[in-house]
Amino acid sequence: MAKEIPQTEKHIFQKFDDDLSNLVNKLLEMGGLVEKQLSDATTALIEMDTELALAVIANEEQVDDFDIEIDKLCVRLIAMRQPTASDLRLVLGVGKSVQDLERIGDEADKIAKLTISIAEESNSPSSIGRAKIRYISQYVADKLRQVLDAYGRLDADLSLTIVRREKIVDEEQKSAIRELVTYMMEDPRSISAVLSVMWALRSLERVADHVENMAEHLIYTVKGVDVRHATLKEVKKQFRDS
Amino acid sequence: MAKEIPQTEKHIFQKFDDDLSNLVNKLLEMGGLVEKQLSDATTALIEMDTELALAVIANEEQVDDFDIEIDKLCVRLIAMRQPTASDLRLVLGVGKSVQDLERIGDEADKIAKLTISIAEESNSPSSIGRAKIRYISQYVADKLRQVLDAYGRLDADLSLTIVRREKIVDEEQKSAIRELVTYMMEDPRSISAVLSVMWALRSLERVADHVENMAEHLIYTVKGVDVRHATLKEVKKQFRDS
Repeated sequence: MAKEIPQTEKHIFQKFDDDLSNLVNKLLEMGGLVEKQLSDATTALIEMDTELALAVIANEEQVDDFDIEIDKLCVRLIAMRQPTASDLRLVLGVGKSVQDLERIGDEADKIAKLTISIAEESNSPSSIGRAKIRYISQYVADKLRQVLDAYGRLDADLSLTIVRREKIVDEEQKSAIRELVTYMMEDPRSISAVLSVMWALRSLERVADHVENMAEHLIYTVKGVDVRHATLKEVKKQFRDS
Repeated sequence: MAKEIPQTEKHIFQKFDDDLSNLVNKLLEMGGLVEKQLSDATTALIEMDTELALAVIANEEQVDDFDIEIDKLCVRLIAMRQPTASDLRLVLGVGKSVQDLERIGDEADKIAKLTISIAEESNSPSSIGRAKIRYISQYVADKLRQVLDAYGRLDADLSLTIVRREKIVDEEQKSAIRELVTYMMEDPRSISAVLSVMWALRSLERVADHVENMAEHLIYTVKGVDVRHATLKEVKKQFRDS
């Protein structure tokens, strides 16, 4: 912003910055809720806690409410204040990240529903794949925390470390699935139970994808550089040049 | 638009409408490509045509290019023309639908990669689940066609029929998965092959979700009513009232 802005204009700018902060804060608030949903859902699955799973399903509506509220806020901000350049990118980036958060909430909901159906099928919850789920869900939760931190500080560098997630989730997934297939072959009666674990792992993989999307939206917001379909090498180059 | 617009202003409006048509046309163009990708990917899987699968993977980049191009178009349109009301909603709705199309492209890519890995694993492609995949993929492809038609005509009523997809995909999915589990139990050596079919079915389910999202974005664009998290009954009511 220029140095010598007349008092009235300054006031308008100030208001706009408030609106933008408010928008980001809403996103972070929604992020906090989604984080809790995801963590509760995986805890429910690991500990076969159906009560907790039901709570996750019940809270899904709150996530949806945030989704609609923030979306409206974005539309109003654009229509009323007609932002340009990085301000506009911020509003649009938040709009997209809201979609990703909402879908992370959906995955939490799916994991919670899985928990309920596993509990209904068998009295004795099996421990198959629990360690893997615990490990991968912890990893994914950390990444979600990081991307929300990055939004709080509009920190593109932190976002870049999230985009380069070094394929850890994918590798862990593959090894988990190989292990689970062996398990099913050795004990075909376990197939249904093992499939549930696989669905949960898939959900966590989707969550990791959405977290990555959010990081990409933030890089675009801050740097004006679209890294979504670039290779890691290209991303680094664009980053240096921007 | 008001009746008595001075000539110069009319000219600006005209230009804006051209830009909006151009934007929607780009979306439809991208939609056509994604439709082909999805149809090729499922054909490749059903007929175990690895060459076709490789073509799908190679074309993925084109989908990504559209994604970036349309996104830029949206940002430029907002920054330069500062649309409001339904025009702004259209731009934002297209921006969101592009994300959904891009992810449908991702699912096509996943199905193509599955085809390659199935082909690598066994010389004799099995016919397990092929009929189900054929049926569900046809259904999903029809819905995708419909939602693109709806965008071409900005037709909210057609979109509403897509949102109410009567849970057909979900029911078919469940029955397919039950069948596949039985298959695995009877012949544990088939587990890996059957899992691939399950992943493909899951991908098609995701495609159906994205098509639904697109229909919801269009309803919001045309009617200004957010139906994303409403029940069917609420949607109908909002529709009548809008």
